[in-house]
Amino acid sequence: MTTELSLNTITTKAWTLGQCIEACARHGIPGISPWRDVLQAMGVQAAAKHIRDAGLKVTGLCRGGMFPAADAAGRAAAIEDNRRAIAEAHAIGAACLVVLGGGLPKGSKDLPGAREMMREGLHAILPDARAAGVTLALEPLHPMTCADRSVLSTLGQALDLCEELGAGTGVAVDVYHVWWDPDLARQMARAKGRIAGFHVCDWKVPTTDLVFDRGLPGEGVIDIPAIRAMAEASGWTGGVEVEILSNHWWAQDPETVIREVKARRAYC
Amino acid sequence: MTTELSLNTITTKAWTLGQCIEACARHGIPGISPWRDVLQAMGVQAAAKHIRDAGLKVTGLCRGGMFPAADAAGRAAAIEDNRRAIAEAHAIGAACLVVLGGGLPKGSKDLPGAREMMREGLHAILPDARAAGVTLALEPLHPMTCADRSVLSTLGQALDLCEELGAGTGVAVDVYHVWWDPDLARQMARAKGRIAGFHVCDWKVPTTDLVFDRGLPGEGVIDIPAIRAMAEASGWTGGVEVEILSNHWWAQDPETVIREVKARRAYC
Repeated sequence: MTTELSLNTITTKAWTLGQCIEACARHGIPGISPWRDVLQAMGVQAAAKHIRDAGLKVTGLCRGGMFPAADAAGRAAAIEDNRRAIAEAHAIGAACLVVLGGGLPKGSKDLPGAREMMREGLHAILPDARAAGVTLALEPLHPMTCADRSVLSTLGQALDLCEELGAGTGVAVDVYHVWWDPDLARQMARAKGRIAGFHVCDWKVPTTDLVFDRGLPGEGVIDIPAIRAMAEASGWTGGVEVEILSNHWWAQDPETVIREVKARRAYC
Repeated sequence: MTTELSLNTITTKAWTLGQCIEACARHGIPGISPWRDVLQAMGVQAAAKHIRDAGLKVTGLCRGGMFPAADAAGRAAAIEDNRRAIAEAHAIGAACLVVLGGGLPKGSKDLPGAREMMREGLHAILPDARAAGVTLALEPLHPMTCADRSVLSTLGQALDLCEELGAGTGVAVDVYHVWWDPDLARQMARAKGRIAGFHVCDWKVPTTDLVFDRGLPGEGVIDIPAIRAMAEASGWTGGVEVEILSNHWWAQDPETVIREVKARRAYC
């Protein structure tokens, strides 16, 4: 059985959403996961129609969350923005809204406080997500992003939040963010029925940038099939979403990147 | 009460061990923690005498471990090298030998296998460490170093190993490596009586290199005093060892770096 692919639009960042949709159709890639900037550039309703007409499955919308902020107005603005993201996810029929933790507020060293802001933000938007039928897919990011992108650092922490929040929540597992975790096998088993997204890319050796140096599957040291097997043992059937943030690959023709992704399916 | 400082010699990498010892005496820094390269360059016996004459406490020897290797000969060589490191630590009266996990063997994606090699290596050298009275201080490194430096990634994982190995083992806590851990408070409490080293530096925002961009205490976002309080609640009384791997600070006059370190004691 061939694993179903989904194209996360950041992988082909030079393209508009329209170009990404056409490329998926042209290359027989059945899924797509847009970022909000390209979605909004196309217009949410127009995008919803194009994606539907192309017969694509929307494996997620990137991204909500990012709740911690230095003041109450900033936190309220983040919550409002997440409500818009939920509406957008609903409009395009996305399987989930990918939710990031966000980093420390500027100037802050209060990590427990930032985690509490994340928790409060999630509680605030949960009723909206439930009403819209949009799953909030909590995505732990690699601990190296803790200061500026994600105070949600481990799968165990994400699952603790899922248990607290209940229906309408799940986890997005990106192999890049979790592969190192000595507790991974246990947490992946614990995630049974909770996996709402499965993202792939690879960890290059050496890695020269903390955010924008990911590899295509097979370029690095992550045993992706082993982690996918854990996901499938926990009920995941949604294939793999390819999300490559990479200055190197962004400098190539996106058509080349798509062909490379397809050629590397065996590494997923 | 002023926290006692110890100078990890990598902080002043341009200096010989002799210069580091003199600087500690000159600046009233009561502790030192040499790396093996500068120790061997001076000669172990000569260094032992100089350190003793200067009245310095040796808070650790950096570093042993690094057990995973692609073949049996490589693993045996690592074990032999660790036996030499234990002898060196004993000779200079070091409070511990800092032990790193090591990364994946070249070309390998087998992370569980590498962790098993680490475990086997620790079991192999434990009798030597016990005979010499040298504590093996297992130091988890930040998960971003998992591929090429340390398959020992969390404090919880290090404490699991301590429990398995028993007497003669402990943990080295470096705030840079553990600050992000959502399970930190619980693991620091669990570390009671097991902390054999406490290292400080800071996480800069942005961080531009995965290994060599650490900040001096106060330059970044780590709440060092909060983590030190956890260590002290778990029985740690050994002060703080300043270990700064930084291309920026290595380009400065080491005398300036020492003065900066002393001026930043309030951030520790």
